[in-house]
Amino acid sequence: MARVNKAIVLKSYPDGEPIPDNFKLVELPLRELNEGEVLLKTLFFSLDPYMRPRMTPGLQSYIKSYELNQPLSGGSICRVEESNNAHFEKGDIVQAGGGWQTRFISKGNVLNYGTMSWSPDDLQKIPSDIKSTLFLGSLGMPGLTAQYGLMGIGEPKAGETVVVSAATGAVGSIVGQLAKLEGCRVVGVASGSEKCSYAKKELGYDDCIDRKEPNMAENLKAACPNGVDVYFDNVGGEVFWAVFPLMNIHGRIPVCGAISGYSKKSLDSGPDRSYTILRTATVKRLKIQGLLAFDAMPLYADFLKYMKPFIKEGKIKFREDIVKGIENAPEAFIDLLKGKNFGKLIIEI
Amino acid sequence: MARVNKAIVLKSYPDGEPIPDNFKLVELPLRELNEGEVLLKTLFFSLDPYMRPRMTPGLQSYIKSYELNQPLSGGSICRVEESNNAHFEKGDIVQAGGGWQTRFISKGNVLNYGTMSWSPDDLQKIPSDIKSTLFLGSLGMPGLTAQYGLMGIGEPKAGETVVVSAATGAVGSIVGQLAKLEGCRVVGVASGSEKCSYAKKELGYDDCIDRKEPNMAENLKAACPNGVDVYFDNVGGEVFWAVFPLMNIHGRIPVCGAISGYSKKSLDSGPDRSYTILRTATVKRLKIQGLLAFDAMPLYADFLKYMKPFIKEGKIKFREDIVKGIENAPEAFIDLLKGKNFGKLIIEI
Repeated sequence: MARVNKAIVLKSYPDGEPIPDNFKLVELPLRELNEGEVLLKTLFFSLDPYMRPRMTPGLQSYIKSYELNQPLSGGSICRVEESNNAHFEKGDIVQAGGGWQTRFISKGNVLNYGTMSWSPDDLQKIPSDIKSTLFLGSLGMPGLTAQYGLMGIGEPKAGETVVVSAATGAVGSIVGQLAKLEGCRVVGVASGSEKCSYAKKELGYDDCIDRKEPNMAENLKAACPNGVDVYFDNVGGEVFWAVFPLMNIHGRIPVCGAISGYSKKSLDSGPDRSYTILRTATVKRLKIQGLLAFDAMPLYADFLKYMKPFIKEGKIKFREDIVKGIENAPEAFIDLLKGKNFGKLIIEI
Repeated sequence: MARVNKAIVLKSYPDGEPIPDNFKLVELPLRELNEGEVLLKTLFFSLDPYMRPRMTPGLQSYIKSYELNQPLSGGSICRVEESNNAHFEKGDIVQAGGGWQTRFISKGNVLNYGTMSWSPDDLQKIPSDIKSTLFLGSLGMPGLTAQYGLMGIGEPKAGETVVVSAATGAVGSIVGQLAKLEGCRVVGVASGSEKCSYAKKELGYDDCIDRKEPNMAENLKAACPNGVDVYFDNVGGEVFWAVFPLMNIHGRIPVCGAISGYSKKSLDSGPDRSYTILRTATVKRLKIQGLLAFDAMPLYADFLKYMKPFIKEGKIKFREDIVKGIENAPEAFIDLLKGKNFGKLIIEI
């Protein structure tokens, strides 16, 4: 078997929305293993919206910009193919931060189960009784983000109204279902009637508004007769501005993402609504707080204990959108930013 | 002695910045007291920035718009002039929400010391060993706002950098001094070199930036070499945008007021920086939270216990800007919105 790594790299940084030509499929040679190293074969890797900001050069952010002509890192599920490491043997299934590539060499640092890292060198063995891809979704970074943001920042109380955008996505679908378990009225915002129907029928949301409808803001208002106590924001933009006027006094807004703006080349033209945010925050005593899964990593073991029973008992459903073939990753990613995926987007190799 | 009430009323709602012609000094008759009522003579009343939003008609806010041709309510210190109430006798000094008028009739509801209300009917007797006007300032609504916002929302830790705008004002000066007592580096922003000098020499701030200097943002950056952990925002606008890029990861922004925008007739022209607020909040995991003294009222008794020793021991200084004569209140208020006052603005009658 050829020891070759096929990888998607950035040929150029996107100028606005990413296009296929920003990406390139390359074959990279793989050297022999050093002592302690393992060779990993990627089975699945995760595509997530946060990867778009990393495709902007010179990022002054929580995470570095991707480098051109290097494999794009990210969460992945891998099988050990060769091992020079006493802790891993051929055939072990591990979680690793290998990203958009079919094979890579890892230092094989042993993480205890329940520890999260996105380094390709840190490996967490995945128990055989759990479907491995869940560690890219409901039991992985998106799930942790959802739980930490909703419970830690949103602090929902029974009877309150929770709105979540990107409501059937990897993070949003967990947010909404957890809020239902807390006894809240849950209203999702998603793109298209198929997703909205799924949110109501499968995820148990009280309502779900199609963001593509021209009267989206009015529909949302009608779906929230008691106003909104928690808005879990994954998208920013137009949806944010539909929800914001509905916020109740002492409302909470965990700000998880702003996918609507990731590919914009400049700020929108005016008026400057920043005053509206600050003034409304005072008048209504709102809490607007940003979050990233990073901050929740020390809570990951507790999160797994909390979440696993819900998953096993079917109380929380999780839909995957699996695309086969690494060569299809760029297009799938481009579609993800447009909300065309339906469920957690994963590339299967 | 003529039983007459001289009052400042709104003749018209301001169109943008208030002008003297929006106000009118009127004489209102006073009826005889009913059982239980007291007649109060105003000694001092408070002018506060929050009054400007109340001068906009049809307010959908935490507090109602002022009505035209009615005395403008607000905090005041009064002496009982006549009493039909067993709990108050002539000569008692009380805190009441009488506002911009020289005399008024109150139902004389008895508040225990340490309870705050802004109703003209609720009266709190002021102990004789405390200067009464402090109850309009460091021991009143502004002090409570400062302490609640800084400690409850800002959560400053020793060694952190705290920036406060309107830094020598009624709220700001308490914020800065409390932050110093917590062991923080405190940088104020104030209008003019006299206030900045006072902030450093008298209030003990580590630095104070003149917001009127053209290079205000650069000066602020230089004064905060370790970034900003807490920004207590009283003004919004230009000062907010000078501080915001300096915020550290996990920074906190208690949003108390936005005086820079109170008299604007419309939002500023673009670009729309609301995206910058939301996106930065996520990337840096900022908490942006609005506050009003209302929410802190149940904490008022505790606040008094906490604050009084600081005041008595001179650990917290409080400057008053006292203007004599009710007829001068409109101009003083107009100047307050421009930052021309120097300390807590109070009208003495």
